[in-house]
Amino acid sequence: METLSENIAFGGVQGVYRHKSKVCACDMTFGLFLPEEARDGPVPVLWYLSGLTCTHENAMTKAGAQAWAAEQGIALVFPDTSPRGAGVADDDAYDLGQGAGFYVNATQDPWAPHFRMWDYIAEELPQVIGAEFAIDPERQAITGHSMGGHGALTLAMSLPGRFRSVSAFAPIANPSASSWGRKQLSAYLGADETTWARHDASVMMREVGFDGPVLIDQGSNDQFLDLLKPEALAGALAARRQEASFRMQKGYDHSYFFVSTFIEDHVAFHADALWR
Amino acid sequence: METLSENIAFGGVQGVYRHKSKVCACDMTFGLFLPEEARDGPVPVLWYLSGLTCTHENAMTKAGAQAWAAEQGIALVFPDTSPRGAGVADDDAYDLGQGAGFYVNATQDPWAPHFRMWDYIAEELPQVIGAEFAIDPERQAITGHSMGGHGALTLAMSLPGRFRSVSAFAPIANPSASSWGRKQLSAYLGADETTWARHDASVMMREVGFDGPVLIDQGSNDQFLDLLKPEALAGALAARRQEASFRMQKGYDHSYFFVSTFIEDHVAFHADALWR
Repeated sequence: METLSENIAFGGVQGVYRHKSKVCACDMTFGLFLPEEARDGPVPVLWYLSGLTCTHENAMTKAGAQAWAAEQGIALVFPDTSPRGAGVADDDAYDLGQGAGFYVNATQDPWAPHFRMWDYIAEELPQVIGAEFAIDPERQAITGHSMGGHGALTLAMSLPGRFRSVSAFAPIANPSASSWGRKQLSAYLGADETTWARHDASVMMREVGFDGPVLIDQGSNDQFLDLLKPEALAGALAARRQEASFRMQKGYDHSYFFVSTFIEDHVAFHADALWR
Repeated sequence: METLSENIAFGGVQGVYRHKSKVCACDMTFGLFLPEEARDGPVPVLWYLSGLTCTHENAMTKAGAQAWAAEQGIALVFPDTSPRGAGVADDDAYDLGQGAGFYVNATQDPWAPHFRMWDYIAEELPQVIGAEFAIDPERQAITGHSMGGHGALTLAMSLPGRFRSVSAFAPIANPSASSWGRKQLSAYLGADETTWARHDASVMMREVGFDGPVLIDQGSNDQFLDLLKPEALAGALAARRQEASFRMQKGYDHSYFFVSTFIEDHVAFHADALWR
């Protein structure tokens, strides 16, 4: 593993690291914030999955999460959103290929050789981080924004016992019924929609639910409301009787200004579950 | 004036605006955060001057200042760091020309026609903002990072009564004795060093001082310590018996992770002066 940068921040260290991913068959880069407490032993960790077009860097520099993670004594992981590199398949569209992994294991060409973001986030990166840094694997939580909110919710529901809490900012909530989803799930998983169900947070919420608290924030002026379909997730949460808060935030849009406004609440929400 | 974007953030509005600058003889872009309280009437304002290579955008998206400005009920202005455009002189170096205005009025060719950042920050932009937004001109404070810390300190000391408080993150503290300074002051102001003195914070601090509180933060692992020369400013503050806190922050570097770590302290410091 290679250290690309380390900056002191809020008494801890914001690092950026690169490693050879077996799962994605390419080099992968991630950000990791370790609070000061990690010097003395393993700390809880909050995963932050990012949205379309993002790398590991966007949330790390713009979401403002480190301030609150430092206060709560928890680590933050900022994975990339797809495999990358010259030998990795791509598409001219911003919402397919590199920067748009959608947190699935692709089964279709040309994506299958590298686009295995599900296994990368669920299996490989936790092992890499656990081996190298003072992270407590028994105390994990997950959040994400947009496509990353989709990933956070589907991973949390599919891996019972892994995450104590899950939250999302403006998640792609019902991808099998949206142009942000049908296009990508078709391309990565193929035409058989039965393989899509475990990658649809609203379907999963109705069928499986989450064994812990859920927090969703959605801006009422989000420019992508028609693609995100928050009403499907809100309905599913209620139908499931899921322990959850679904908050429609008046006037907010899809930007990092929205994320940074409410990240304090999300970090505190997860810290409650992580330190319980 | 043209609105380029407005995003709700922390209950207020983070806007980006473009206007025709008479002083710089080109279009200029700035960011302005207005807290919720600005709907009801004029609010105090904190100016944030950015460093080399930055536009209005860097601090606006990466410093995390809005969280604290919203809490304190004060506005934030994020000006650009130079005139820009096809007709504006530039240099291949990152530290001269566009993105490197150094907060002076250039008197030398080819810079003189557009590079008038002193008058832009001291005169024109305050008028533009005052005419269009709910800003209280009697309650202003100023801060900045690196080249912007240089600008904040020299403006504050040269305009007595304008700013109630001044702070800086890792300012270029003694430009007339540094390669970050001699090169630019020569190019913009010419070889006569007597014209440089009012643009050197350490010289100004020894000769004039500031009628209000001063806060300086400097990282001990800053990669540019040799160019910033904090020891000159620290010595001048002490020699002047200036009301000031000069803090050497152990381990911190020159990045926005350093700025974002201490921005809460700076906003609170200015709010104390602004709401007095």
